[in-house]
Amino acid sequence: MWTVKEVGLGVVAVALSLELIVLLVRRLKPRRTLNEVLFFPTETVCVEHIFTSSSSDTCLCSLAHGVESSFTRLLRHILSASSSLDLCIFAFSNMDLSRAVCMLHRRGVTIRVIVDKDYVAISCSQIGVLRKAGICVRCSVDSVFMHHKFSVVDGRLLITGSLNWTLSAVQGNMENILVTEEPDLVKPFIKEFHKLWAHNDPARHHRSSDQNPAHFTARA
Amino acid sequence: MWTVKEVGLGVVAVALSLELIVLLVRRLKPRRTLNEVLFFPTETVCVEHIFTSSSSDTCLCSLAHGVESSFTRLLRHILSASSSLDLCIFAFSNMDLSRAVCMLHRRGVTIRVIVDKDYVAISCSQIGVLRKAGICVRCSVDSVFMHHKFSVVDGRLLITGSLNWTLSAVQGNMENILVTEEPDLVKPFIKEFHKLWAHNDPARHHRSSDQNPAHFTARA
Repeated sequence: MWTVKEVGLGVVAVALSLELIVLLVRRLKPRRTLNEVLFFPTETVCVEHIFTSSSSDTCLCSLAHGVESSFTRLLRHILSASSSLDLCIFAFSNMDLSRAVCMLHRRGVTIRVIVDKDYVAISCSQIGVLRKAGICVRCSVDSVFMHHKFSVVDGRLLITGSLNWTLSAVQGNMENILVTEEPDLVKPFIKEFHKLWAHNDPARHHRSSDQNPAHFTARA
Repeated sequence: MWTVKEVGLGVVAVALSLELIVLLVRRLKPRRTLNEVLFFPTETVCVEHIFTSSSSDTCLCSLAHGVESSFTRLLRHILSASSSLDLCIFAFSNMDLSRAVCMLHRRGVTIRVIVDKDYVAISCSQIGVLRKAGICVRCSVDSVFMHHKFSVVDGRLLITGSLNWTLSAVQGNMENILVTEEPDLVKPFIKEFHKLWAHNDPARHHRSSDQNPAHFTARA
């Protein structure tokens, strides 16, 4: 026969075990990290509601409304920035993406842009628009292509892939974008951006050029 | 005073709890997923030992030996394929990467390559080398750029980024490659490859062209 004492001991043991198990489950269960892949070309849909946060049916343009596409997902990820956006891009001519970056700048988000020097002045380049808005842009100083296409939102979210920020890339080419919060992937890109930002500082370049123009290379 | 029965019950309860906890820890503890980022340009080092699996000091070339670089890491990831390599690439002219793909083919690894049609016949293109070796290559059939630069090793490992498989990309440009086993990132690329492989089937294209050439588009 079980005594009251024995039953009580059993209940306490089970209760303690359950408590411990719940604690362990909470501690060990991997938190869901955002990982998303977007493919292009994307169908051309109205993105007005993403900028105005109004209902999509208030816009009278002829494009499809209220439709999520790879491009609307990309815009939403960029516009999720609340403190910083670091962008390193080969070509930037997409007006919607430029509008998103300017909107973030007006909201007080710190924007830093590195762009390939040969693509700054091409027709449709949005770099002039960004600079006019007061956004800090640095051009690559080396003779090689600055071929990256990545951005980091709030030091937390990495957006990278094959897609340049152009209209033909979004609406024409077969492209991919990978969006991730995985720290092992985000951190190296943050470090690389810092390195590139310092390396492409025009003041530093000017001094280096004066001293020894032949030895101004991308990496040691 | 504790009776033998009470102590026995306690021991059994603790033992069972511990067993359960160990099981839960094993089940819930996140397995270490490979996540790696490689940046380019990379220093030019000897890669002979990667292909011959000989000691790096047996090669007599003038390049640095026994040095790991972003490129040697990339080669090792590609050569880790044991069953399949799916590659979707805009431009492929790098001879070391071509050598790696041909080596895998000789080992019996199933290789499938999709490449942009305009870049098949450029000088230095390695596509002819792959085809001569008996590797199945499909060219994009659409007029838009096939701008992807990704590969999937054994349906397990995704290699993607801004880097085309060219010499200038590896040794010249500022580029990135992201290597991951994260299923949420790998699976969409596998699905996209299957879609592109079927879409760019020359037989299908031929029939479609016969029927309605105007409606042969990349996506619905």
